[in-house]
Amino acid sequence: MSKGLPKRSEDYSLWYNELVKRADLAENSAVRGCMVIKPYGYSIWEKMQAELDRMFKKTGHTNAYFPLFIPKSFLSKEASHVEGFAKECAVVTHYRLKGDPSGNGVVVDPEAALEEELIVRPTSETVIWSTYKNWIQSYRDLPLLVNQWANVVRWEMRTRLFLRTAEFLWQEGHTAHETKEEAQEETLRMMNVYAEFARNFMALPVIKGIKSESEKFAGAEATYCIEAMMQDGKALQAGTSHFLGQNFAKAFDVRFATRDGGLEYVWGTSWGVSTRLMGALIMAHSDDNGLVLPPKLAPIQVVIVPIFKSGEELQAISEKAAEIMEKLDAVGISVKFDGRDTFKPGWKFAEYELKGVPVRIAIGPRDLQNNTLEVARRDTLTKESIQLDQIDLTDKIQTLLADIQNNIFQKAKRFMDEKTTMADTWEEFVEVLDNKGGFVSAHWDGTAETEERIKEKTKATIRCIPLDRDGDQGNCILSGKPSAGRVLFAKAY
Amino acid sequence: MSKGLPKRSEDYSLWYNELVKRADLAENSAVRGCMVIKPYGYSIWEKMQAELDRMFKKTGHTNAYFPLFIPKSFLSKEASHVEGFAKECAVVTHYRLKGDPSGNGVVVDPEAALEEELIVRPTSETVIWSTYKNWIQSYRDLPLLVNQWANVVRWEMRTRLFLRTAEFLWQEGHTAHETKEEAQEETLRMMNVYAEFARNFMALPVIKGIKSESEKFAGAEATYCIEAMMQDGKALQAGTSHFLGQNFAKAFDVRFATRDGGLEYVWGTSWGVSTRLMGALIMAHSDDNGLVLPPKLAPIQVVIVPIFKSGEELQAISEKAAEIMEKLDAVGISVKFDGRDTFKPGWKFAEYELKGVPVRIAIGPRDLQNNTLEVARRDTLTKESIQLDQIDLTDKIQTLLADIQNNIFQKAKRFMDEKTTMADTWEEFVEVLDNKGGFVSAHWDGTAETEERIKEKTKATIRCIPLDRDGDQGNCILSGKPSAGRVLFAKAY
Repeated sequence: MSKGLPKRSEDYSLWYNELVKRADLAENSAVRGCMVIKPYGYSIWEKMQAELDRMFKKTGHTNAYFPLFIPKSFLSKEASHVEGFAKECAVVTHYRLKGDPSGNGVVVDPEAALEEELIVRPTSETVIWSTYKNWIQSYRDLPLLVNQWANVVRWEMRTRLFLRTAEFLWQEGHTAHETKEEAQEETLRMMNVYAEFARNFMALPVIKGIKSESEKFAGAEATYCIEAMMQDGKALQAGTSHFLGQNFAKAFDVRFATRDGGLEYVWGTSWGVSTRLMGALIMAHSDDNGLVLPPKLAPIQVVIVPIFKSGEELQAISEKAAEIMEKLDAVGISVKFDGRDTFKPGWKFAEYELKGVPVRIAIGPRDLQNNTLEVARRDTLTKESIQLDQIDLTDKIQTLLADIQNNIFQKAKRFMDEKTTMADTWEEFVEVLDNKGGFVSAHWDGTAETEERIKEKTKATIRCIPLDRDGDQGNCILSGKPSAGRVLFAKAY
Repeated sequence: MSKGLPKRSEDYSLWYNELVKRADLAENSAVRGCMVIKPYGYSIWEKMQAELDRMFKKTGHTNAYFPLFIPKSFLSKEASHVEGFAKECAVVTHYRLKGDPSGNGVVVDPEAALEEELIVRPTSETVIWSTYKNWIQSYRDLPLLVNQWANVVRWEMRTRLFLRTAEFLWQEGHTAHETKEEAQEETLRMMNVYAEFARNFMALPVIKGIKSESEKFAGAEATYCIEAMMQDGKALQAGTSHFLGQNFAKAFDVRFATRDGGLEYVWGTSWGVSTRLMGALIMAHSDDNGLVLPPKLAPIQVVIVPIFKSGEELQAISEKAAEIMEKLDAVGISVKFDGRDTFKPGWKFAEYELKGVPVRIAIGPRDLQNNTLEVARRDTLTKESIQLDQIDLTDKIQTLLADIQNNIFQKAKRFMDEKTTMADTWEEFVEVLDNKGGFVSAHWDGTAETEERIKEKTKATIRCIPLDRDGDQGNCILSGKPSAGRVLFAKAY
């Protein structure tokens, strides 16, 4: 199966596309730009969802559901919002088809034109704030902490599986607060939730920061983000959390009676992560043999492959495997036994490597005699023989899974650190971007003009102004003007 | 809060609408026919989803995700399918807006017309079978057992919250099989899963049956269904499971290499339940005081309301409540303590009755002295004083919740039985429909013509041909022609 997977060093982009398809994660559909998320890929997404949902609820949020469609006029109510989304949206103009008069298929019924066109939501601020107007009267109704799991559509012209698709799945949190400070706290809280999720579950180190004015969300006062580094040296924005100020409250006239009897506009936030995280997960860890999954998100954590020549051997091994499965299952480890006789062990080994199963146990007739097992780990591609008399297998596997989870993170962390370079001159800056890639930490004069010129010259964008940057002052690498501190540049997905 | 909820006996329809809104389940949105599912309503839906998802996985299904959009030409590939859905679908014709030349808002950009219009999925058979064509080559790829949780859109002209909305949430299973028998088994299996879910979780008795030719799904060979009875004597279709034969396999040319070296079309099924179940749940059990929720689907199973005059009293009661909550929480019972001092106990009692919380515990200063509690149950609106020295509270509450779950079911079952009437003449038939409502079990000659005439005359439709009907033969109530057995008629949602 994995034979013929392109090498990362030769064509990273082709490697990614082929891996996504061959590992049964996703594929392109008959509809331009829309993907099919296949069962194996979807089961990873379900694990992400479950954990994120738990984290959102733990921080006081509840789920709700808002309409797929947004009246065209709603978009225009927040000026920069319509600017950001009008250019790439799916527009519903009719509500009926009729038989083609030529007798061939169906055509749009011109008599069924909508009075006002509807936009398939690219994000839901407008439809949600139009609803919040009725939900919020007084400070007693605040904070309002709501999340939605939904599909959204942005008509991207160049699409790539998971990374940029016309339709994608995501969650979008939309909260309303009494004070500016509370809304700002919420914005940071959710950025931190995302960073914690990326680290602890995806084994993905991220940089927390704030977007430049040019890169912030259309309608936000400030956009916080987490940025990750992929193996090809390109950055990937993995999640964003927006402080909306009173922008949407003003656009939809959402005011509340304050504690001291006044009437004020509500303060808002919104925050989201999407199936794009699948792309980040795949690109951050996988290798030329296929997917490498952190155990906490792996649908199958352990696979048992029998090595057998006869039906009797398979039978004996199956019994041993059943014992092991029962033990591992009891501590919540997901195990699969692949007893198919239509495929050889070598084929199965390659198949589960391709699919990123963290631990593989092989059992042959000699193992039964000697009470041994062969245990292989996906992350390092190493294996060892285990003497079952001497160790507690459950302990062993639990420790191994934790170790793999940690190792994948450490490896990605080392990689990101190694791919982060300081540049103090324009020549250094260009040289790093051209030859090494990764994040370049450099001084910038803070103007949109310089940011745009750097982008034109190098294709690198400001990924973020890191939250933990020191006060290191200096001069802009391009304009030479004074800078308040270094920002992170990179070419990005 | 519940003051002013209309009475069921006076205006059932108004009672339903008001209940849905006041209990914070759902409301109409700014988009015609689309609802907002509010956090409390959504948390009930999440409980339904979790249990159904568990049941689907237990029966071997996995989740996946397919595109929101369906190319117009796909719909036409199955003749009766396009017939069924073309008349009420949302059509995407453009992919961009632009500034209105008049300077006012945005307009559809005429230069951004799609080459082929896209339909927002009303159901996903076509896009899924076009995908299955690539997934299925051989009998080894079968059965393919996939489910999808998604939103769908049907442009209904007359909408009602949960019962009939332009956009709704649902799950749709789509399976592919080697043989006709296996597909038929699957169709029945999933109908049974739905019936079991309705009974054990929704406390909803249902009739299992098969739809008449006129009522079956557009594209199916046979549609199985579960039908429930609402308190106003109208029936509600709560779930359907379709045997698709080879219809979609033929429409999308999905063939497989058989075990004996042949090439054959695949056999298919599809099955779904939707947020309509929320409507069934509400209408089946609730009363003039508000919602009555079966404990297994109640987001809050127990609410504790303190009765206090001073801050010290509240403090003392809160400590007692915390002890109780810890115990109940430990056995998985969801408890809420409402210690707000901005609302009186009576207001809170009415509020939690409106929201259908199954058990209410009230604690006052005298209860602290006497080591007692007042425990009230929502289903019967009765209460009792509990002496804590003498009973195990956890046991007591567990037993009570189980008893409420069972009582709600039994009550609904008695109601349905009482609302099922045999009619042997046209006069009886009309009399029952006019005065009593409910299911009418009557003979029918099996023709679509008679079915249609009965519908025109009485507004009653054939809800189903019950699977457990006996061989009781007779004569059609309208035409007098021979009948092979009784079918169930009713006016329906």
